[in-house]
Amino acid sequence: VKTRWLVNGLETGIHPSDRGLAYGDGLFETMAASGGDVHRLDRHLRRLARDCERLRIPCPDLGLLEREIRAACPASGRAVVKLIVTRGPGARGYRAPASPEPTRILAVAAWPDYPPSHYTRGIDVMLCEIRASENPMLAGMKHLNRLEQVLAQFEIAARGADEGLMLGARDNVIGGSMSNLFMVKDEALTTPALNDAGVAGIMREVVLEHASARGFETSERRLAIAELREADEIFVTNSVFGVWPVRRLDGRRYRVGPVTRELMHALELGPHA
Amino acid sequence: VKTRWLVNGLETGIHPSDRGLAYGDGLFETMAASGGDVHRLDRHLRRLARDCERLRIPCPDLGLLEREIRAACPASGRAVVKLIVTRGPGARGYRAPASPEPTRILAVAAWPDYPPSHYTRGIDVMLCEIRASENPMLAGMKHLNRLEQVLAQFEIAARGADEGLMLGARDNVIGGSMSNLFMVKDEALTTPALNDAGVAGIMREVVLEHASARGFETSERRLAIAELREADEIFVTNSVFGVWPVRRLDGRRYRVGPVTRELMHALELGPHA
Repeated sequence: VKTRWLVNGLETGIHPSDRGLAYGDGLFETMAASGGDVHRLDRHLRRLARDCERLRIPCPDLGLLEREIRAACPASGRAVVKLIVTRGPGARGYRAPASPEPTRILAVAAWPDYPPSHYTRGIDVMLCEIRASENPMLAGMKHLNRLEQVLAQFEIAARGADEGLMLGARDNVIGGSMSNLFMVKDEALTTPALNDAGVAGIMREVVLEHASARGFETSERRLAIAELREADEIFVTNSVFGVWPVRRLDGRRYRVGPVTRELMHALELGPHA
Repeated sequence: VKTRWLVNGLETGIHPSDRGLAYGDGLFETMAASGGDVHRLDRHLRRLARDCERLRIPCPDLGLLEREIRAACPASGRAVVKLIVTRGPGARGYRAPASPEPTRILAVAAWPDYPPSHYTRGIDVMLCEIRASENPMLAGMKHLNRLEQVLAQFEIAARGADEGLMLGARDNVIGGSMSNLFMVKDEALTTPALNDAGVAGIMREVVLEHASARGFETSERRLAIAELREADEIFVTNSVFGVWPVRRLDGRRYRVGPVTRELMHALELGPHA
């Protein structure tokens, strides 16, 4: 399957003056689709609208986005749907136009071939040398400034790991390079708070809700890397792969435990989900 | 004058899969041109090559870039030449292609109408609320992850200031939103070290060299915001406007002093330069 691109609803290119290109001045959403359905589309669009407000980008009409996404989504099989919204074209300089005309870019790509063992045996996570830089005014957003993640992936590829853990300046856990991280200890779930860095993932939100509904204690707080040594279970999440148990992190081994399994089951996640 | 764009030498658009757009995965150079000459082109290209290496982007042939830039530069009058180099198109995901084909984007834009008083009376600089986030692996590069500068410009526009000063996490000065900053105290120049954040500006480098050559002591080091209160003179630099004296910073007034004037004269900078 070849990736298909639509720019403002048409099969065209991006204008070179687009601020998404010039400054990473925009946001994106990556969504799983199957059988003609885009998973949690409403939540993705709500996050997009919220983050557009934080960046003062006039959010494209959510009804229009929904129609374009549903129209582009294949009627059967699995796919990854990616939506980019930028502040649109601009003159030279960082200052945003007074009346921006945002660009919306939609891509429908083939479903990635994840090894089934990522779900059953878990993944191997390394500790990245590159840190996640901290800025409360950018934290939580899935914006287009992603060079740290790009550089993290060089480290991950060089080591042959499945994912890389990124720390903040004071050895606090921020998350995976392309995922959020959860620690389970005594049946309580902890995931890093995202006030200073990281992306507020949709699957992270869904897992927190499911865990609460099933009676698990959950907390979002500053998490020191040293605390992970005492974890009973660790798993990572994102909207495409869902939940992957961690079987090794920074040389230490973890089991695929009952809490992770229960949440994966509740979310209907697994190699054949 | 309408801005003219060239993508890989042609007047075309950017492919939506370009990683410059997806992740800000690229670099840029902004250069002043006059009378058919692009100022300090060699230095700009050297910085580009160095930063491409840091990001592991195969740098386009410098001879080709030079030819394209010289061909696009207007034969007379002033213009701003901007070059963007991205890692080029890619598949979904942060991981870079094994053999990237970088995209080069060239824009020739009209010279900005700076008020002559910016050179003679100096500019009004505010203290931005948004901080420059720190990451040694990104510091110094003129990369495309510029959301902090975009948000800083909202603050500057709201206040009607000419430039905004950005601090690091510990009240250390990083620089202006679109400039480097120098402090003069007892005829010695100090500019913030750029190990953790900021852009290693070409005009900053040129000013440091000129100042040394003229016998002024210079230092690049951590600079606390509190130290600026004791400054005799403050000025900011970038490759397009050159040097602007600061007449007010965060409510405090400074004079356009003799060291700033001497350097502006040496660099042949001024409203009619």
